[in-house]
Amino acid sequence: MREVLAQAAFQLFLERGFEQTTVDDIVARAGVGRRSFFRYFPSKEDAVFPDHESCLAEVTAFLAAVDDSDPVAAVCDAARIVLRMYAANPEFSVQRYRLTREVPGLRTYELSVVRRYEQTLAGHLRGRFGETGDEALRAEVIAASVVAAHNNGLRQWLRSGGAGDPEAAVDHALGLVREVWGSPVERTAVASGDNEVIVMVAPRGTPMWRVVQQIEAVVGQE
Amino acid sequence: MREVLAQAAFQLFLERGFEQTTVDDIVARAGVGRRSFFRYFPSKEDAVFPDHESCLAEVTAFLAAVDDSDPVAAVCDAARIVLRMYAANPEFSVQRYRLTREVPGLRTYELSVVRRYEQTLAGHLRGRFGETGDEALRAEVIAASVVAAHNNGLRQWLRSGGAGDPEAAVDHALGLVREVWGSPVERTAVASGDNEVIVMVAPRGTPMWRVVQQIEAVVGQE
Repeated sequence: MREVLAQAAFQLFLERGFEQTTVDDIVARAGVGRRSFFRYFPSKEDAVFPDHESCLAEVTAFLAAVDDSDPVAAVCDAARIVLRMYAANPEFSVQRYRLTREVPGLRTYELSVVRRYEQTLAGHLRGRFGETGDEALRAEVIAASVVAAHNNGLRQWLRSGGAGDPEAAVDHALGLVREVWGSPVERTAVASGDNEVIVMVAPRGTPMWRVVQQIEAVVGQE
Repeated sequence: MREVLAQAAFQLFLERGFEQTTVDDIVARAGVGRRSFFRYFPSKEDAVFPDHESCLAEVTAFLAAVDDSDPVAAVCDAARIVLRMYAANPEFSVQRYRLTREVPGLRTYELSVVRRYEQTLAGHLRGRFGETGDEALRAEVIAASVVAAHNNGLRQWLRSGGAGDPEAAVDHALGLVREVWGSPVERTAVASGDNEVIVMVAPRGTPMWRVVQQIEAVVGQE
């Protein structure tokens, strides 16, 4: 029933536009009573994003059960759960993306959903790092970075019309975040005298991949 | 007139609640006609945040004129413009913060305003870094980090009831972002006279992309 209503709603939004479609139109198309709609969806906007509540619940359950050893990796994995929800239904995701670009109310709704994911990730990181001061600050900035990276990769895929594998783009984007934020112990060592700098010496003409490999090897050893 | 309307609206929101106050109540309190309200504010929500449009314009103008040498520092300075708008009127900012916590429609409105600041900062960084691929990704992640750091510092101050200097907390929070995203590789130089080696000195924890960027810049110069 929920699925049927969401499909009827979405077809009508595409055919007539979001603003021009009433809840009465939706229940007529779905062949059910008006109260059925509001039993499943608080508003028309919710019917456009029918999977976010269950996805948020999945993200929360995942983080509650995840191995604690690398919190930044854990919130990146949590972001991948959201991506898989979009990737499971490319045509719907792409059509919804286009619809959302056109309807300010849907964009605002989406922002509030994204904010809830961000707060969930930040809450997990605060639980690991600490609830106050610089720990909370770091948690919130990392959560915002993860969400921005995820959205960058997702958006590329949506703009391309859902072609190819969105996971590759998102993995790459999350990789940047993990590279920057993923090793807090190492970053703390920046201030101390001995570990202050990396000095790398290479013959000129060394290929860039070898330079990178060499630096990575040094950083990895310590 | 705009100021008078915003003040009348805000007093009524505090006295009666946001939802319980109508535009008719506001114009009656301000002693003007109903159309005057909509000449200045598209909606009741806009009257709660009367300064964001001019602040966004100020941020945009600042970034258009700013020195290009350190784009991350520039967007941090742009975020400080927003902070000063809040800090200019502590009592109003704190009352509005409390009101916004209680009214979902105001929270959503605020999210869409924050998103516009974030897009403005990201647009500036993309203009400096590049519009596509990893450059655009980096621009968006840094913009999100700056906004999250700014909001962390601002929120501390608002929660404390507007006591003390909010700039210190925000400066500290933005400092974390600059440390991670803005710290330049200290020195990359061709050290030996006969061009035999590259010596690269970087703070430990410098992200790999920045190391590569710096080496490429040096190699490209010669």
